[in-house]
Amino acid sequence: MTTKMLNEIREQPEVLRRILDEEWGAVLAAARDLRSRGFRSAMLAARGTSDNAALYAKYLFEMTLGVPAALASPSAFTLYDSEMKLDGVLVIGVSQSGESRDVLEVVGKSRELGATTVSITNDESSALAEAADHHLFLHAGREESVAATKTYTASLLVLYLLVEALNGAESPRAEAKELPELARAVLEAEWRGAERYRYANHLVVTSRGYNLATAQEGALKLMETSYVVAHAFSAADLRHGPIAMIGQDFPVVAIVPPGKAREGMKDLVGNLVERGAEVAVISDDETLTSRAPVRFRMPIACPEELSPILYAIPPQLLAHDLSRLKGLDPDAPRGLSKVTETW
Amino acid sequence: MTTKMLNEIREQPEVLRRILDEEWGAVLAAARDLRSRGFRSAMLAARGTSDNAALYAKYLFEMTLGVPAALASPSAFTLYDSEMKLDGVLVIGVSQSGESRDVLEVVGKSRELGATTVSITNDESSALAEAADHHLFLHAGREESVAATKTYTASLLVLYLLVEALNGAESPRAEAKELPELARAVLEAEWRGAERYRYANHLVVTSRGYNLATAQEGALKLMETSYVVAHAFSAADLRHGPIAMIGQDFPVVAIVPPGKAREGMKDLVGNLVERGAEVAVISDDETLTSRAPVRFRMPIACPEELSPILYAIPPQLLAHDLSRLKGLDPDAPRGLSKVTETW
Repeated sequence: MTTKMLNEIREQPEVLRRILDEEWGAVLAAARDLRSRGFRSAMLAARGTSDNAALYAKYLFEMTLGVPAALASPSAFTLYDSEMKLDGVLVIGVSQSGESRDVLEVVGKSRELGATTVSITNDESSALAEAADHHLFLHAGREESVAATKTYTASLLVLYLLVEALNGAESPRAEAKELPELARAVLEAEWRGAERYRYANHLVVTSRGYNLATAQEGALKLMETSYVVAHAFSAADLRHGPIAMIGQDFPVVAIVPPGKAREGMKDLVGNLVERGAEVAVISDDETLTSRAPVRFRMPIACPEELSPILYAIPPQLLAHDLSRLKGLDPDAPRGLSKVTETW
Repeated sequence: MTTKMLNEIREQPEVLRRILDEEWGAVLAAARDLRSRGFRSAMLAARGTSDNAALYAKYLFEMTLGVPAALASPSAFTLYDSEMKLDGVLVIGVSQSGESRDVLEVVGKSRELGATTVSITNDESSALAEAADHHLFLHAGREESVAATKTYTASLLVLYLLVEALNGAESPRAEAKELPELARAVLEAEWRGAERYRYANHLVVTSRGYNLATAQEGALKLMETSYVVAHAFSAADLRHGPIAMIGQDFPVVAIVPPGKAREGMKDLVGNLVERGAEVAVISDDETLTSRAPVRFRMPIACPEELSPILYAIPPQLLAHDLSRLKGLDPDAPRGLSKVTETW
């Protein structure tokens, strides 16, 4: 029997296609208005999976647009009633359900405090969709599995397109248009050796730069669906302390994308192997994956700034497969519901 | 035999006293200049322990000063050569050694890109001390243990004083002046029941708001010195997914400070106990601590925004004691050195 989660993972190519075909016009219109209003910095408000999409957007804003960006601390708005001065700040709230109360409150209050606001949701009639100056739609179709998958990559693509449009693009670049086909190719590849995580209680997921978001989202999926204590670190943060806990046989999943993060990640993999860790690799680098006891060989190449959309898929598959291997139900993690209310 | 780490933990009251006695003048002078230059947002650059101090500062900037603040992604500067527009941004680099290359690069490049810069270090002749418009000194004395303790609370206090001065204070408030005495009282209290972590492989540390920094720093100390996979979450983030992994007997350390975070934390503790988790509590709330199988009863009360300076101490003691209990050397975690070079 297939699961809802696996079906939704497999829907990702068509969701990406729908966004490219149907959402660019709205993205362009929003970007034109935002550019004419002007903004000096960005603040991204989200929780859970959407917060990992927000982290990706932070890098896009800073690296491709030259605009400093922050991840909002929702409690500043919901618990401590901060009266931040937010004129000149673009606030973007991301929530697949559009009903996350704290994200809604950040967007609503930010607007009162002078910010220009955008919301990104998978429900056009949600409270969050109504609350912002502009709304962008994820086109993901209904997501029934509690663990978000297709809405995550959909959020990444919408955020990518928004930054492209803010940068002055008149249409999505060719590499973005290839994403649906590339995602299909990734879905045809598979994990090798992942059954050895059957009795793993903990593992570390690591990457760097744009794909730190991928590591965080991968760790979250593993925690949600297979109850492994999965801890994500950037390569640099790992070296600043946590690496001490990694010794003989410690399981690490390294995400080694193309681009500027690659050399540092290869060094880290070497260091971890020297420490005796067992390092799984997700990469298009054949030399690196062929040596790894657990591996997902990416069958495609793509620009680094787009790679998180494609590199998100192998960790989703790992979390799903491991949940099944453990006899758990990936569609219904214990104690979680689809809309989480926190404030 | 006592360890360097324990000696340095015990030095904290006098370090806090030295900062209050000797650094306020420099803080005030820096703040006057920063106010006259003006800034609309803050960006904090740090790694490891200092990054947790930066997280505390983010809340201070946003909640008490009304200035939106971001944690810098150093790789934006060091790996991706971002040309961010940083006029009107106050960039603060925190590094106890002052030799962290990536923090140095963030501060140096930010200054070229238009930011006003402040560095906070425990070495007045370090490269970072020289690189910024203003330097603030931690007065912690030499820190020999690899795991930073006294430089952490020193960083928190210097950041607190800086925000106070930016807010127009002419002298530190009375509650801040009491910190050395309060820290002494905390050092006289002790853990109950912590020996049951002898064989724990993983645990979760959780808090909320200002003390999310305390949870993160506590988890880092545990990873560094006792090699436990310690994972910090805000109460809200824990509910957005990771709580699924917490079932029967899962060890959780809950930091329940006074103030606005308290009610939500008490609710969370109740929910976790219902799930069968074993919840340790660090709190001044007697009812809550008396019920906990593992506990550190805080013997003092203090304003929430200052509490991270005092609540940092019990997790330091836990990390130290657990390291000893496991027969490890808390002064020399495997594979770490005092100055970590990453970029």
